Amino acid sequence: MWRLHQFPLCPFSRAVRFALAEKGVVVELVPVTPWGGRDALVAMNPAGQTPVLENGTLTLCDSMAILEYFDETVERAPLLGAGAAERAEGRRLAAWFAQRFYGEVTAPLLRERMYKRVVTREPPDGNAIRLAGRAAEVQLQYLEYLLDHNRWLAGPTFGVADVVAAAQISVADYLMGIEWGGHEAARTWYSALKSRPSFRSLLSDRMEGVRPPPHYDQLDF
Amino acid sequence: MWRLHQFPLCPFSRAVRFALAEKGVVVELVPVTPWGGRDALVAMNPAGQTPVLENGTLTLCDSMAILEYFDETVERAPLLGAGAAERAEGRRLAAWFAQRFYGEVTAPLLRERMYKRVVTREPPDGNAIRLAGRAAEVQLQYLEYLLDHNRWLAGPTFGVADVVAAAQISVADYLMGIEWGGHEAARTWYSALKSRPSFRSLLSDRMEGVRPPPHYDQLDF
Repeated sequence: MWRLHQFPLCPFSRAVRFALAEKGVVVELVPVTPWGGRDALVAMNPAGQTPVLENGTLTLCDSMAILEYFDETVERAPLLGAGAAERAEGRRLAAWFAQRFYGEVTAPLLRERMYKRVVTREPPDGNAIRLAGRAAEVQLQYLEYLLDHNRWLAGPTFGVADVVAAAQISVADYLMGIEWGGHEAARTWYSALKSRPSFRSLLSDRMEGVRPPPHYDQLDF
Repeated sequence: MWRLHQFPLCPFSRAVRFALAEKGVVVELVPVTPWGGRDALVAMNPAGQTPVLENGTLTLCDSMAILEYFDETVERAPLLGAGAAERAEGRRLAAWFAQRFYGEVTAPLLRERMYKRVVTREPPDGNAIRLAGRAAEVQLQYLEYLLDHNRWLAGPTFGVADVVAAAQISVADYLMGIEWGGHEAARTWYSALKSRPSFRSLLSDRMEGVRPPPHYDQLDF
């Protein structure tokens, strides 16, 4: 059986969990704390990052490489659309959310509201949180611009861009970084994702010592 | 015809140019300076980054999405190996070099030895250059570890990992950031790439105001 080394608020692990659940691939979750005991993680993944997926003989690292692997080997719930252009758009947007949303929103929130609370026990930097909030606002605007043009983020069908964006947003939302007011289109899109069984199991996960806001796992938010 | 918006020392543009030349796809090069007149670039690519490839009706952004697009649509010179596991390893390593090598080596060198010289006319930060040099040393060691196990970086055949790594290294080498001494295996691998016609045309490019060291485009270095 596949074993996924991850931690509950890792947005890249969440993207993999979401996609594998869509595809019906069962994985055993192995909890990892990247900030403690990195050696075991680096031995599996030189980048020292979650997620790592292994089944004894094969070790897969890098969330996008993992998604591509399962899209190639499991036919159910294709993540990359039908034509080459739609596939390129899915990959562009997956990279956008994994780099920009993560860098400007998820990563600062993880540092201020998870790492400082759980690991270093420092107070959060209010200014960093405000900047992350402003960046989240820009990201939601871009997401709604995309939804103006397509049913799903990269085209007519659900795919990798939706998976990666939802994974990042779910962590930001857990850490109270998303202001949903005034974003009906984004809310409708996210609500549709929240109602998928593949995503609901993710939302039931809790990180010890960090509580999400009440609306976090509700369909009506 | 495809038009590639790029600049000579952009390592991601170089990866695309290298791969397209391998595949025999002819592109017109459109020079872009990302630090001046960003608006036109942002209109094509919301991320405001090179490379952007367009042919009038279709715009492709994100170097990995571009490489995947051409690997799907042009059979010649496959970049991703035969099996799903080798393909995953190619993608993992491409992400490694695009993120880690770029972040720790290429990006600081571009800032200190290109941007400060050409744009802001500040002196370079010697400490940042020393740190980039140490990171380059670690990267070359990892590259040689990979070459201990395989003929090419991700497996028995030339592919996307080699393309992305060579593109990053070529920019770092242009900016005098690579110390080749003591790295025979890496040197042999890079020399084989330098002798490919697809890569040679890249090495003949010059960035105005920044001169590479004499060994930069020589096969014997």
